[in-house]
Amino acid sequence: MRDAYHEELDSIGEGLVEMARLVGSAIGRATTAILDSDLKLAESVIAGDERVDELQHELEARAIALLARQQPVATDLRIVVTSLRMSADLERSGDLAQHVAKLARLRFPERAIPHDLHATILEMGQLAQRLMAKAAEVIITKDVDLALQLEQDDDAMDLLHRTLFQHLLDDRWKHGIETAVDVTLLGRYYERFADHAVSVANRVVYLVTGEHADEIQAAPQVEGA
Amino acid sequence: MRDAYHEELDSIGEGLVEMARLVGSAIGRATTAILDSDLKLAESVIAGDERVDELQHELEARAIALLARQQPVATDLRIVVTSLRMSADLERSGDLAQHVAKLARLRFPERAIPHDLHATILEMGQLAQRLMAKAAEVIITKDVDLALQLEQDDDAMDLLHRTLFQHLLDDRWKHGIETAVDVTLLGRYYERFADHAVSVANRVVYLVTGEHADEIQAAPQVEGA
Repeated sequence: MRDAYHEELDSIGEGLVEMARLVGSAIGRATTAILDSDLKLAESVIAGDERVDELQHELEARAIALLARQQPVATDLRIVVTSLRMSADLERSGDLAQHVAKLARLRFPERAIPHDLHATILEMGQLAQRLMAKAAEVIITKDVDLALQLEQDDDAMDLLHRTLFQHLLDDRWKHGIETAVDVTLLGRYYERFADHAVSVANRVVYLVTGEHADEIQAAPQVEGA
Repeated sequence: MRDAYHEELDSIGEGLVEMARLVGSAIGRATTAILDSDLKLAESVIAGDERVDELQHELEARAIALLARQQPVATDLRIVVTSLRMSADLERSGDLAQHVAKLARLRFPERAIPHDLHATILEMGQLAQRLMAKAAEVIITKDVDLALQLEQDDDAMDLLHRTLFQHLLDDRWKHGIETAVDVTLLGRYYERFADHAVSVANRVVYLVTGEHADEIQAAPQVEGA
């Protein structure tokens, strides 16, 4: 039974990686859709989220079946429970990518994003996609150092988010309230997406080290950091 | 062992109810804080979220201990796994109440909410608090009919959210961009808070009936609905 058990555990891990890849791709495509006002691309992201939800249900069913059949304890039990948490993070990330795409669709054929914010939104979208790609890699490799990098990427996301707000609150803002509302929501979607990617990576850190990511990061004193 | 087991299961349920009560109170107090620009009240909500996080950690540890020691199967297993999910919903709801309070603190001594939106925000805050109170009651009573009511309350929340946007996008909006940004985020926080309360109730429905809430609601044909 031991082999079948580890096969099942592996297949849960693979499901998580597939979810991370799907939602990483989704946020990248949603960003392109909103920057280019590409309705077709937006629709494909919106429709594609169903697959992410399906994967989550499959993964949940597999995890529960594994708990019932194999009754894991200690670390193995923690892995299964943590996988459930990660799948929830990833499912929610998919929703956020879908929100970005829905905003693109809502404003089509107009562009939701004014030209002077194009670069910032592009950066937020790219960073979100990279964060999720790294989260997928962390699930595969269980590389704690890589996982800790995500916290720094998330700081970069916070900085971009602040840049966005500075633009919004600048007296020279001339794009009106509707665009301000859109940009506010969009900023929030990217920020939350990044939080979920970090959360996935941090859960791996906790499984591997038994410590929370912030405890580990607090230890080394890096100069000029 | 059977009795100890059910005691443990009950204590998880009690933990969930306590979490729901704390976050329900938090959203009510955060709403008062932002409407009255009451810094002390805002601070108390912000500090109080730590207790919610602690409760979640305790609950998670208890659930994992129960899985390891008692190795429940079938319905009992689903209850434990679902409890983990509910605790995540409630923890997140606590964060959202904290976000409302932080906005109150950020704008203090100014009022974040203009007078003409006071009534709408008050209604959203009260509705959020009622939704969470009902969610707590659903956990205790496992009353499916009550759980289904939450979907209707959530529709009312969506309506309030739309009202808020109509105000924002009205040509007569005269409160500037910063307030528009604040109100946009605030609307999002209440909407997400309500979603989590509905999610908690729906998870109970699924445990009790084996059906998803939307499948059950689709069944009866109510005239004029």
